[in-house]
Amino acid sequence: MDKLEDTQNEPDGRMIPIHRVGIRDLNHPIQFQDGEDEPQSTIARVGMSVALSPDVRGTHMSRFVTLLSEEAEAISVAGLPKVLDTMARRLESAAATLRLEFPFFITKEAPASKATGKMDYTVLLEGVQEDGETTIHLGVRVPVTTLCPCSRNISERGAHNQRGEVVLTIAGDEGLPSVQELIRLVEACASSELYSVLKRPDEKVVTEQAYDNPVFVEDLVRNVAMRMRDMPGIKGYRIEGENFESIHNHNAFAVVVGG
Amino acid sequence: MDKLEDTQNEPDGRMIPIHRVGIRDLNHPIQFQDGEDEPQSTIARVGMSVALSPDVRGTHMSRFVTLLSEEAEAISVAGLPKVLDTMARRLESAAATLRLEFPFFITKEAPASKATGKMDYTVLLEGVQEDGETTIHLGVRVPVTTLCPCSRNISERGAHNQRGEVVLTIAGDEGLPSVQELIRLVEACASSELYSVLKRPDEKVVTEQAYDNPVFVEDLVRNVAMRMRDMPGIKGYRIEGENFESIHNHNAFAVVVGG
Amino acid sequence: MDKLEDTQNEPDGRMIPIHRVGIRDLNHPIQFQDGEDEPQSTIARVGMSVALSPDVRGTHMSRFVTLLSEEAEAISVAGLPKVLDTMARRLESAAATLRLEFPFFITKEAPASKATGKMDYTVLLEGVQEDGETTIHLGVRVPVTTLCPCSRNISERGAHNQRGEVVLTIAGDEGLPSVQELIRLVEACASSELYSVLKRPDEKVVTEQAYDNPVFVEDLVRNVAMRMRDMPGIKGYRIEGENFESIHNHNAFAVVVGG
Amino acid sequence: MDKLEDTQNEPDGRMIPIHRVGIRDLNHPIQFQDGEDEPQSTIARVGMSVALSPDVRGTHMSRFVTLLSEEAEAISVAGLPKVLDTMARRLESAAATLRLEFPFFITKEAPASKATGKMDYTVLLEGVQEDGETTIHLGVRVPVTTLCPCSRNISERGAHNQRGEVVLTIAGDEGLPSVQELIRLVEACASSELYSVLKRPDEKVVTEQAYDNPVFVEDLVRNVAMRMRDMPGIKGYRIEGENFESIHNHNAFAVVVGG
Repeated sequence: MDKLEDTQNEPDGRMIPIHRVGIRDLNHPIQFQDGEDEPQSTIARVGMSVALSPDVRGTHMSRFVTLLSEEAEAISVAGLPKVLDTMARRLESAAATLRLEFPFFITKEAPASKATGKMDYTVLLEGVQEDGETTIHLGVRVPVTTLCPCSRNISERGAHNQRGEVVLTIAGDEGLPSVQELIRLVEACASSELYSVLKRPDEKVVTEQAYDNPVFVEDLVRNVAMRMRDMPGIKGYRIEGENFESIHNHNAFAVVVGG
Repeated sequence: MDKLEDTQNEPDGRMIPIHRVGIRDLNHPIQFQDGEDEPQSTIARVGMSVALSPDVRGTHMSRFVTLLSEEAEAISVAGLPKVLDTMARRLESAAATLRLEFPFFITKEAPASKATGKMDYTVLLEGVQEDGETTIHLGVRVPVTTLCPCSRNISERGAHNQRGEVVLTIAGDEGLPSVQELIRLVEACASSELYSVLKRPDEKVVTEQAYDNPVFVEDLVRNVAMRMRDMPGIKGYRIEGENFESIHNHNAFAVVVGG
Repeated sequence: MDKLEDTQNEPDGRMIPIHRVGIRDLNHPIQFQDGEDEPQSTIARVGMSVALSPDVRGTHMSRFVTLLSEEAEAISVAGLPKVLDTMARRLESAAATLRLEFPFFITKEAPASKATGKMDYTVLLEGVQEDGETTIHLGVRVPVTTLCPCSRNISERGAHNQRGEVVLTIAGDEGLPSVQELIRLVEACASSELYSVLKRPDEKVVTEQAYDNPVFVEDLVRNVAMRMRDMPGIKGYRIEGENFESIHNHNAFAVVVGG
Repeated sequence: MDKLEDTQNEPDGRMIPIHRVGIRDLNHPIQFQDGEDEPQSTIARVGMSVALSPDVRGTHMSRFVTLLSEEAEAISVAGLPKVLDTMARRLESAAATLRLEFPFFITKEAPASKATGKMDYTVLLEGVQEDGETTIHLGVRVPVTTLCPCSRNISERGAHNQRGEVVLTIAGDEGLPSVQELIRLVEACASSELYSVLKRPDEKVVTEQAYDNPVFVEDLVRNVAMRMRDMPGIKGYRIEGENFESIHNHNAFAVVVGG
């Protein structure tokens, strides 16, 4: 075919650097390997972007999708730096970001009946390469039960409780803890963890356990923060807790940042 | 200006009638009058559509938006039939549908402290004119507290509870009950209603009240159904309850249809 | 352990039948087999429900999740009736519904460069068993390009176009056409199909092809309807088209129902 | 009534400061005054939060809602610092954040027919008070048309175009430009602005105008950045552009940060 004009490669006279340019909201099947586990098949929502020099008009968007196709079968925290290297090189940029958000499943046993079921979480994985240095942000969104300490203390019977959610994000390099380790850590900080299958004897256990472990949203994020203080090899963390309040039509939230 | 070709008015040889064609996901400020109350300013998400004869290629979309602009200051259940008449006439169609979904606020007093705050609900209002007959569907989405009867009965202390939601939709003519009447009716069927402001003495009241009125999602919709049986002037109803379970990461739901 | 009270099995005096009760918004990994293809790993959003007799207080929610765990590795249109049988039997109900919504991927070649990439669609699969009879609803959500015939005809250069979407749902039994057949059928009815990877020569092809095949949202759904008329073995269909208009901040839509 | 235990005011031994704690996803009607205009009635999604000392267990959530009720009738950029003062004082905190996101409407005339209609935008208004200093972030989300320069240059006829969106956020004090000024500025940087009502002569104008003003998503954000350079009284800005590509099922985006 004839040579088609390359409009993206035109020089640009405005001389404005673009911090990031790329694609997002692209859905793609991936294989994600967590720590030493077998890879898990899942579907990621993907964003990929690079920096653009002030003197170039546009980037080449199709290269992102081609690169993703090549790498999607082997996504892991440890493998992220190499993917970012390739992205920066192919897109001819000094900076590159890859962001994936995907459901992650853990098969759990109910506490009394030992009935099993898959419980779903969300992983937020982002790698940023800038000026030759790579930082990885690994986040988990973990649903939990929270039972209100104030409601319990002032009421003669019962206590309001609800589904809550913690988003824990840590920053570091490819030696970060596993997704499962982070999820377990968060679940231990709430009034109770959640399950996909609970029979009656299990429901009794989780109800009483939640009543015995009341937490405000402030307690929830502080409990997680206590455990982050001792975690080696992380450059920083952000803990966000949210309660879908059962007595209000709005949510309560709290944020701790550290590291 | 010159006469521009009217592509929409071309004859269409495929001879396929179009059930509905129009616009949707249009945001527009409206004034909604509920019963005899003062009109309330709110923002509606609007859909408007008509039927299209098998022999015409397209409808004239801009007429919907112009009509909405004219009518938006005076939306009410009672006024819907006239708007539908105008829509059918201007779009030259035998059928017309107008659908509005919008937040609706009620100022409520907390049960003990009497502190006040605005509580938000959602109204779903749809009018359908077909072959000269008009039906109005009026729906309310009402957030509530539900406390699990099973969890309470089997546990030595506490009971899991959560935010739930009821969508009650009734069908009839312009003499339907008010939005506020429907909301109050639903709230009386749950373990507790919700509030935007609750001080400590109020929190004690709602916690104990919820504990004393446990409902499964099945109870919730049946309680509403009991009250719908006695309601005069409605052609049908649909009651959908949903619990955002505090012990699971999925929801429980139940549906009753009647009338 | 001691015998725990079975609150769900209590008799209910309100005598109100519940049309459907169950779970929804549960995320679960599945293997979906389309026609004779290899199964595809994906993540489904699942709803499962049964009818409940007027004289029973509640259903047993944990049984749904256990059943899903057992069946998730082998989901197909052909296998749905058996799953519904099992659900109705285990939940002791005369009616059962299973609904799955999940991303589905097809590897496509760009029209000129033949570069490949995975394109994502959404499948909506619902089976309903009622009084011994089973109906399957199979839907596909297909993104497309639509180019406005009116804009093209009245303008001296260019024509507004945009991303649109068709949701085609057909009803029938386990002999329904494959998901891929439905997607291909819909894509042939738009101004152009979409791709995940397009290089410059491809972009030229799809731009000119869209310009040469303008369709209103009305044309889009009628084009699909023409092809449904000839499709054997379906009991009914519903075609919904929507344009995310590039010149408005609202959408245009059209619906054809038939069969 | 008896004195109820104040669990929130308990001392906390974990000694972890909480960056922010409060409420969010609360819907509330507001009156928003833009510049010198008449106030506009709208519905905001509100977040309110404060910092919490390491030695206190919890904040008092109900005070946020009460404060919002008092202030909701008079929201403006200029009035934000006083609301933040009150929030910090009542919640006894050294830091306070108020965030509102709400639809904002401008009545626009179509370019040829002069037909009028209300066009909707989104305003993102956030005030942060920290250590006695207040910063205001004012953002507008503006939908636009973008037409691809590459597609136009390589194709013999037509050019793919689509709905896009710019989120422009500026930081400064209560002397920031008006919402309308920001919206007009953004709209002038795209291939065409959007309208709610367009008749055929208008559609011809916007189609040809878009064809004559092609912009990549990179051009879009750079065009806005050019105008931000000259804007007085702002401490910083962030420009995010996104195209809902008509030829792909994913989006292209670009970000410029400055100031």
